[in-house]
Amino acid sequence: MEFKIMILGHFLMISLALNVGLLYRDYCNGKKKSQEFFSSENKFNNASLVTNSNANYVVESTVPETKETSSSKAVDETIDLDHGDPTMYERYWQKMGDKTAVLIPGWRFISYFSDVKNLCWFLEPEFADAIIRLHELVGNAVTENRYIVVGTGSTQLLQAVLYAVSPPNATEPITVVSAAPFYSSYPLITDFLKSGLYKWGGDARKFKKDKPCIELVTSPNNPDGFSRIAVVNQDRGILIHDLAYYWPQYTPISYTADHDIMLFTVSKSTGHAGTRLGWALVKDQEIAKKMTEFIVLSSIGVSKESQIRAAKILQVVSDSHKYTGDFNEGEAFFEHSHKLMARRWKQLRETVKNGKIFTLPEFPLGHCSFTNRSFASQPAFAWFKCEGEIDDCESFLRHHKILTRGGKHFGDDEKLVRINVLPRDKIFDQFIKRLSSISSS
Amino acid sequence: MEFKIMILGHFLMISLALNVGLLYRDYCNGKKKSQEFFSSENKFNNASLVTNSNANYVVESTVPETKETSSSKAVDETIDLDHGDPTMYERYWQKMGDKTAVLIPGWRFISYFSDVKNLCWFLEPEFADAIIRLHELVGNAVTENRYIVVGTGSTQLLQAVLYAVSPPNATEPITVVSAAPFYSSYPLITDFLKSGLYKWGGDARKFKKDKPCIELVTSPNNPDGFSRIAVVNQDRGILIHDLAYYWPQYTPISYTADHDIMLFTVSKSTGHAGTRLGWALVKDQEIAKKMTEFIVLSSIGVSKESQIRAAKILQVVSDSHKYTGDFNEGEAFFEHSHKLMARRWKQLRETVKNGKIFTLPEFPLGHCSFTNRSFASQPAFAWFKCEGEIDDCESFLRHHKILTRGGKHFGDDEKLVRINVLPRDKIFDQFIKRLSSISSS
Repeated sequence: MEFKIMILGHFLMISLALNVGLLYRDYCNGKKKSQEFFSSENKFNNASLVTNSNANYVVESTVPETKETSSSKAVDETIDLDHGDPTMYERYWQKMGDKTAVLIPGWRFISYFSDVKNLCWFLEPEFADAIIRLHELVGNAVTENRYIVVGTGSTQLLQAVLYAVSPPNATEPITVVSAAPFYSSYPLITDFLKSGLYKWGGDARKFKKDKPCIELVTSPNNPDGFSRIAVVNQDRGILIHDLAYYWPQYTPISYTADHDIMLFTVSKSTGHAGTRLGWALVKDQEIAKKMTEFIVLSSIGVSKESQIRAAKILQVVSDSHKYTGDFNEGEAFFEHSHKLMARRWKQLRETVKNGKIFTLPEFPLGHCSFTNRSFASQPAFAWFKCEGEIDDCESFLRHHKILTRGGKHFGDDEKLVRINVLPRDKIFDQFIKRLSSISSS
Repeated sequence: MEFKIMILGHFLMISLALNVGLLYRDYCNGKKKSQEFFSSENKFNNASLVTNSNANYVVESTVPETKETSSSKAVDETIDLDHGDPTMYERYWQKMGDKTAVLIPGWRFISYFSDVKNLCWFLEPEFADAIIRLHELVGNAVTENRYIVVGTGSTQLLQAVLYAVSPPNATEPITVVSAAPFYSSYPLITDFLKSGLYKWGGDARKFKKDKPCIELVTSPNNPDGFSRIAVVNQDRGILIHDLAYYWPQYTPISYTADHDIMLFTVSKSTGHAGTRLGWALVKDQEIAKKMTEFIVLSSIGVSKESQIRAAKILQVVSDSHKYTGDFNEGEAFFEHSHKLMARRWKQLRETVKNGKIFTLPEFPLGHCSFTNRSFASQPAFAWFKCEGEIDDCESFLRHHKILTRGGKHFGDDEKLVRINVLPRDKIFDQFIKRLSSISSS
């Protein structure tokens, strides 16, 4: 205990030094050019070869740019809302300061093993504890009598599930489907290795064959934000529930999810996308074993640094909802991020309503058991529709230097685009201004 | 600068607190049961379901057990030398104390991006710098005019290379070969998804077809420790060089490797296997791009926590060879680990020589440009051969409660087994005692 107090005291000192001495550098200064990196047609305009500038390593000396750009500069800038980069969350974590700092000594994480008694032997026990505590707090998913499998993001976990549930010795690959509009990476992830185990089959609503299939159910859905249930006949369909966005800043927690296979990710819950960490809650032991096997063959486990850091962050999220003296008014994580999303969606809807060019989906009010309030979904992505004569909404917006992802990537119409609602404040504000000027022109 | 000095001062205080207050716990207490986790036939005897014990998260409060076990206990214990868990290195990193500690504040690594100007946009620049500096120090590989691609261990990178070099539209998958004895995971990694792009073809020396193929050249080789060159006709073969063990604690640095595609990993260079981090040095831009694409589709990049920590560790390794006042006599990393390996191999050879049951490979003397000394290889694995009437060496040793990996997993004879030479001191000492008693019985 004395040890902990000492550590905390020194953390505080470091924090003061950090707060006084922070060197501001333009970490994300708007000069970055967009790259279509989540698609399979990457274009790297500035591909860099190794040169011999051996800059000395400096322990984290930079914080992201939070200054507002001048409006004259903003008019010319390309606004990249193609990817779901959740940088909106940076400001909150900066405010939390040293509460979430993690110190890792050099001798840690030598071994491949985290917990040999666990089926998923590379899962750090602290991370597992933090996951369970958070789900119990929020009430969004059942954790009791579930196996937890950790992955390098839910992207790796999705592939682990496909491997785990596909018949190993079938004469032809099992079909993987999802109701359109579906997450644009699903077809690429399923097909890029030309696996003999599974293959992409497109829109689940069009799958009429009397054969087994795997259905990916994303709820709330990426890109359109709607809550979903499976559409394929459940006798034939193996269901994988991607619940990355089932958190109270985005949607009312209307039930405690109890599906066979549920995927979550740190990227969309707390915003730590660079940590590359996801988890699966799995009912069946054999499926959990095969998922673990996939992750061993794919990468011999998952970064323990990421796990230990995510454990700390999830615990701070849970702590922030205890409303004790450690946190100020309005600092409870989901409360804070819910308000932020509510404000952004209000701005979005007002701007769209003032013009006649775009429409947005309407979401019904739902009661949220976590906040004990009723509200309508305010998703991480806005699913814009260009009305009237604009047939290719992505091109139209690109012409106005707004990068989005067009409907065809999601198995839908080109009149639709997906827009990231989670960029940093200054980018979102620029976007609203740009949208307003387009609508009034 | 003042900021840096302040940070360092506080690190020192934390270090003192750590040194005084460390709570010893039996992190690896010999009760762990072995699991065949690197094979595809995992057996989890103690598979654990989630229970609701929400232990509070404590920032790294444990160090691994380093006490010697009593000899009476040691006689009965199973000695697991199946996997290449490099826990030997733990003691060195404990001695280095706060030099390698990394503090990560909560607001870091929100974004997916590390450096959008880099072809491999999820590569942390600090990690790239540390890699280049270390290769320049050791002289084991050319880094100039190379692309660096980071992966979740060299396991993920190997798959990224297979994807990158396989013809995308061929009518049948390209054959992947490696000269026997080859790393036991190669066949599993190549075939587990039944890819239509590539398939395992076994021993490279038996590949006689007049067709293109991919040859995996592991040098020094896992399992037998020998230096290798490609065996397939180079006009038809695409070569991937796995240089995980080409470091001066294991083998003389006899040339600066200059191959088209070279793979390295933190696990075997510094011993941080839990960090799950590898890097590729790649000559061709298109291959580097496709590898990057693979890692995006597979896991949308690589843990930034792991990268920032590995950056620090590699820099400390380089620093330790500057022989400045920060390091004591004999603390230069490769010097220290070379001596440790030399001592272990001396013990191994003496024990084996005293009995008549086993033989070990003999390695020629080679001049090492890094140490400017001549020595024979002292590999991370010992490739034991059971002589006489013992046909199944793995079973024979298992009967004596020593877990090893039999030759058949490596495409070789059952009279051979691979033994991990990198366990913690107490395990290695137990092994030598056990071996001695087997040899004299």
